[in-house]
Amino acid sequence: MELQSSAQELDAPTTITIKGILGLLVSSTDAKETGKRVISLGIGDPTAYSCFHVSNAAQEAVVEVLRSQKFNGYAPTAGLPQAREAIAEYLSRDLPYKLPADSVYVTAGCTQAIEIALSVLARPGCNILLPRPCFPIYGLCASFRNIEVRYFDLHPEKGWEVDLDAVQDLADHNTVAMVIINPGNPCGNVYSHQHLKKVAEMAKRLGIVVIADEVYGQLAFGANPFVPMGIFGSIAPVVTLGSLSKRWLIPGWRLGWLVINDPDGSLMSPKFVERIKKYCDINGGPATFIQAAVPEIIEQTQEVFFRKTINILKQTSDICILLVEDINGISCPTKPKGAMAFMVKLNISQMKDISDDIDFCFKLAKEESVIILPGIAVGLKNRIRITFAVEPSALEEAMERLKSFCERHSC
Amino acid sequence: MELQSSAQELDAPTTITIKGILGLLVSSTDAKETGKRVISLGIGDPTAYSCFHVSNAAQEAVVEVLRSQKFNGYAPTAGLPQAREAIAEYLSRDLPYKLPADSVYVTAGCTQAIEIALSVLARPGCNILLPRPCFPIYGLCASFRNIEVRYFDLHPEKGWEVDLDAVQDLADHNTVAMVIINPGNPCGNVYSHQHLKKVAEMAKRLGIVVIADEVYGQLAFGANPFVPMGIFGSIAPVVTLGSLSKRWLIPGWRLGWLVINDPDGSLMSPKFVERIKKYCDINGGPATFIQAAVPEIIEQTQEVFFRKTINILKQTSDICILLVEDINGISCPTKPKGAMAFMVKLNISQMKDISDDIDFCFKLAKEESVIILPGIAVGLKNRIRITFAVEPSALEEAMERLKSFCERHSC
Repeated sequence: MELQSSAQELDAPTTITIKGILGLLVSSTDAKETGKRVISLGIGDPTAYSCFHVSNAAQEAVVEVLRSQKFNGYAPTAGLPQAREAIAEYLSRDLPYKLPADSVYVTAGCTQAIEIALSVLARPGCNILLPRPCFPIYGLCASFRNIEVRYFDLHPEKGWEVDLDAVQDLADHNTVAMVIINPGNPCGNVYSHQHLKKVAEMAKRLGIVVIADEVYGQLAFGANPFVPMGIFGSIAPVVTLGSLSKRWLIPGWRLGWLVINDPDGSLMSPKFVERIKKYCDINGGPATFIQAAVPEIIEQTQEVFFRKTINILKQTSDICILLVEDINGISCPTKPKGAMAFMVKLNISQMKDISDDIDFCFKLAKEESVIILPGIAVGLKNRIRITFAVEPSALEEAMERLKSFCERHSC
Repeated sequence: MELQSSAQELDAPTTITIKGILGLLVSSTDAKETGKRVISLGIGDPTAYSCFHVSNAAQEAVVEVLRSQKFNGYAPTAGLPQAREAIAEYLSRDLPYKLPADSVYVTAGCTQAIEIALSVLARPGCNILLPRPCFPIYGLCASFRNIEVRYFDLHPEKGWEVDLDAVQDLADHNTVAMVIINPGNPCGNVYSHQHLKKVAEMAKRLGIVVIADEVYGQLAFGANPFVPMGIFGSIAPVVTLGSLSKRWLIPGWRLGWLVINDPDGSLMSPKFVERIKKYCDINGGPATFIQAAVPEIIEQTQEVFFRKTINILKQTSDICILLVEDINGISCPTKPKGAMAFMVKLNISQMKDISDDIDFCFKLAKEESVIILPGIAVGLKNRIRITFAVEPSALEEAMERLKSFCERHSC
């Protein structure tokens, strides 16, 4: 009964949130019955594990600023100048031009950057092109802003590349933007320079903005290095969204940004920029003292800290792939190359008593106390999203339980 | 020239923000020319002055939580349970019933609480009733959400009480809510129990929600004690907005709340509550570690800290009133009784070369390096809003300069 009602609540795609579903899954575990501790491969928040802890430098930068008592007041709504400057300088390292500080708007995490981007683009009758699968906040946010959503597919067999023909077919004169998430959530893909250039050229042809969600920026461990979309800011107008959350392992600090990549100063509508500024006025941004620590956080965090994270993610994604290949009933045509999660295909026909991905995930939670996100939450039925930003030993245990579960339920 | 273009930018009321105007005013000061340091009586951010510094208890509560490394991850989007519980307990002290923790939504400052309240109430064709004068974020936020705004007057000669007849005349079947700011910004009024009850009864009659902005809650130093609107939550549905910003002197920490006051559980539409929950998912709330410190911040801050702030505000508001009464050309029929600012009337006909409040404030900034907000920014022409949350010596100096300015420009 509970399972059924849980599933029913997931009916309307725009009402789905990852946290909502994971909450339902956690509440359907029964650790007492199974004797197994709950392990979540559900959410991209690695901070629960000591191998993914914040750097001492970042933490103490905040303590120092806080104790200075100079940053308890309001920040300018677009962000503290020194934070905007530091973020601009940081992002410029990978760009062929220098971002001006005033192209950076400091936001309460990447979530608020998404909210701002979509809100200022919204106008009556407009539509936006989103990838399928997609981080669901985009759809939810669009529905609150009365923006029609049109989905273009990502090709699982081609490294989750954008179906550019579909983009062309979907767009019309009411299309305001398309969204690219790179490194990918939920797919763990990392796009090549060449593919991103094609995306920019398509956006130019269609006269639309590219919203480049780079919240997992730099978190690449495969053959493709991370390439920021802003490189193509001279081809099409690019709005880059990002945050300290993932790379610095501080998602709860809510320090993100929205950046206008317009090196020639000619592609981005001045009206759009004006609306961003106004919109910032009605939004509560991140805490001023955290903003004030941003220059220190960026400067003082050593390469060895980032390298360690990348190495663990490479190791844990390898653990996942190895075990997925060993499990009947599930498969993964495209291996993760970045970010913190990837998509696994369920071969429902090989399972005797599993009806779909939701059924799979609720039964898995109940029987094995393992939490995995059903694919429908990100727009792909009969797949699951596995987060590998998990301590290796916990991940191995969870994957072994997943294996037992699949064996028990296979035909 | 610059003055003119600045003034023109202020034309459309919905594009006015306090920070925007104050920025223009600051940039039109000329400290080199006048030899006077800039003193701002413009914004309700007292943290620039050492007499209004954060308590050590609050600051160290955050340091301790941060160093525990337990709160770097995501919080539930409605807020960390212990923060919701602590805020509910704090607000319940002044209510005839106990607020449940799940009626509290933790927000990035009161600004985000406003944004959430208006966004979830918005529906096509709806309107909202706002006081005149009003904190301008309400109008700006309503315009982003396509909510029509209708203003009811506050009576300056009756302690800025709500013109309830006007409320009745303005409301129709598309009216979703009315806003009450108490203690008042920009007026510094504190409403009586009796008046608030009348407001609740009017809202009941009209079938609308009362949005009670209590960001200055408890900051009352006149005859009327602060009465929370939630007391009347059994009469009409009340949504209370507040934050730690003002009373704890930490506006930059962005820790606010939106609270559903519905003691009988019958007045607030379940759909409305559902929309708030969903809306929280697309919003970046305050930093998790600041939320985690909320119980300590509330428990450990001593009465003597609050008392000190109230005493200074009483003292500085007295300084203002005394000097305003001594200055020709300006007057103040209603003395401030709370909050951090109040409204002063300009008698333009007694001034020889001042055309209106904008002209007054720009000339004052240029000649005296004193920043005061023109009344038009809060909806009242030919008044000015003076913030008295300023160190007494700086305030006295600013008021003396204001006096010189008025003398120089009087007929």
